Amino acid sequence: MHILVTNDDGVTAPGLLALAQEMRKLGKVSILAPDRNWSASGHVKTLDRPLRVKEVILADGSSAWASDGAPSDCVALALCGFFDEKVDIVVSGINPYANLGHDVTYSGTVTCAMEAAIWCVPAVAMSLDSPDTQVGVPDYAPAARLAGRVVQSVLRYGLADNTLLNVNVPALPEENIKGIQVTRQGLRVYHDKVDRRLDPRKRPYYWLIGDVPTGVPERGTDIGALAEGYVSVTPIQLDLTAYRLLPDLNAWEWNTG
Amino acid sequence: MHILVTNDDGVTAPGLLALAQEMRKLGKVSILAPDRNWSASGHVKTLDRPLRVKEVILADGSSAWASDGAPSDCVALALCGFFDEKVDIVVSGINPYANLGHDVTYSGTVTCAMEAAIWCVPAVAMSLDSPDTQVGVPDYAPAARLAGRVVQSVLRYGLADNTLLNVNVPALPEENIKGIQVTRQGLRVYHDKVDRRLDPRKRPYYWLIGDVPTGVPERGTDIGALAEGYVSVTPIQLDLTAYRLLPDLNAWEWNTG
Repeated sequence: MHILVTNDDGVTAPGLLALAQEMRKLGKVSILAPDRNWSASGHVKTLDRPLRVKEVILADGSSAWASDGAPSDCVALALCGFFDEKVDIVVSGINPYANLGHDVTYSGTVTCAMEAAIWCVPAVAMSLDSPDTQVGVPDYAPAARLAGRVVQSVLRYGLADNTLLNVNVPALPEENIKGIQVTRQGLRVYHDKVDRRLDPRKRPYYWLIGDVPTGVPERGTDIGALAEGYVSVTPIQLDLTAYRLLPDLNAWEWNTG
Repeated sequence: MHILVTNDDGVTAPGLLALAQEMRKLGKVSILAPDRNWSASGHVKTLDRPLRVKEVILADGSSAWASDGAPSDCVALALCGFFDEKVDIVVSGINPYANLGHDVTYSGTVTCAMEAAIWCVPAVAMSLDSPDTQVGVPDYAPAARLAGRVVQSVLRYGLADNTLLNVNVPALPEENIKGIQVTRQGLRVYHDKVDRRLDPRKRPYYWLIGDVPTGVPERGTDIGALAEGYVSVTPIQLDLTAYRLLPDLNAWEWNTG
């Protein structure tokens, strides 16, 4: 069993170490992750420059690989030839904040798993729903143990090609987590706006700002499960076709104009 | 009618100009696009630095806005306050190469439209299926005119919230294009591998390389439509839930281990 552990927060992130330590109980772990934080970076494939990969030593003395590529580049490197040994499963995270609803297209954590799904390797994205007010390193241990359970289940039952699991864990003491809910993707509500400022030379610059995204805590969704104290496990696919729109679109008169 | 034109190739790309000129026949056009090429950059939200936006003059003498943000940042800027006037529709492209199958999660062109869909603004991503051997600027005129037809149809019939249209046009003389097919997302086949080289100081670096992705030209898919000489119009949604897996996952025993 060869498990690739990666993330989007950078190879030195404590969430990655907690995840790797738990995964070592299940098999051989290789770590290949970005050398810096790439949060909200999306699905990247770096084709216009070569990538460097260097060995680094993590806080527990173990060895890992750090690349100057994006999170999804790290997965592509790992699955397309960097390691001699075949990778059996990819686990990314643990992200310190939740990846819920529409976050999945932005999320570096999830795009690591998407890249694995493209190569038909089973993948799990792990995120902890830390409060926005979190100070210091959150307790990743409950989420790491949950990752162990989810990975064991994936290895036991298998995952369909081109799919992945997006797992979010409430930031609660382990005994207060109510269990695992299989969910669908909920509806995020973003509150972004543009904040225009003037620099010292009176030239404008623009911050994309906004309150932390909220969401519709509908039952059966990832957002609803977290709100009730459950772990959400959402199966994600790479087929984004809006099938329900096909009949309508087929009825459109395209040839006007 | 206020149309935002953007792309992932940069504001000076000829495909953007061809698109903007055609859109001007339908309404007021604003252009806000990246100041450089961001191909295969994925869905980005830049939160850790402010963005600059400067006015530039395009090759036809018209005015546009260029930002140092990612393609999806440009759309967020445009829809969240940079322009005083509400944007009615977002059109991105024309990308010189096709965005088919799984390309949609990588594609800057498509992520522009995804960002619009998040803000519930109808959006169309336009790509031209130029051959890999294309030398010089392709003829964007047929694809631009098709964009006009598609945008008119979207304005006439409307698009469901959180969906967009991903349009790919064969690189054929206009009279040889067979028509428009409403399609689902096909299956891309990637051929990437890692090419390890040594730099002049004998340190390794790695290129992600591979032949151009191919695809399964199944009838009813975007890849199949292009292969037959049709324009593909694929409705894309932001809900990536693999609904067909929910019953299976609900039957898994999660509590082992």
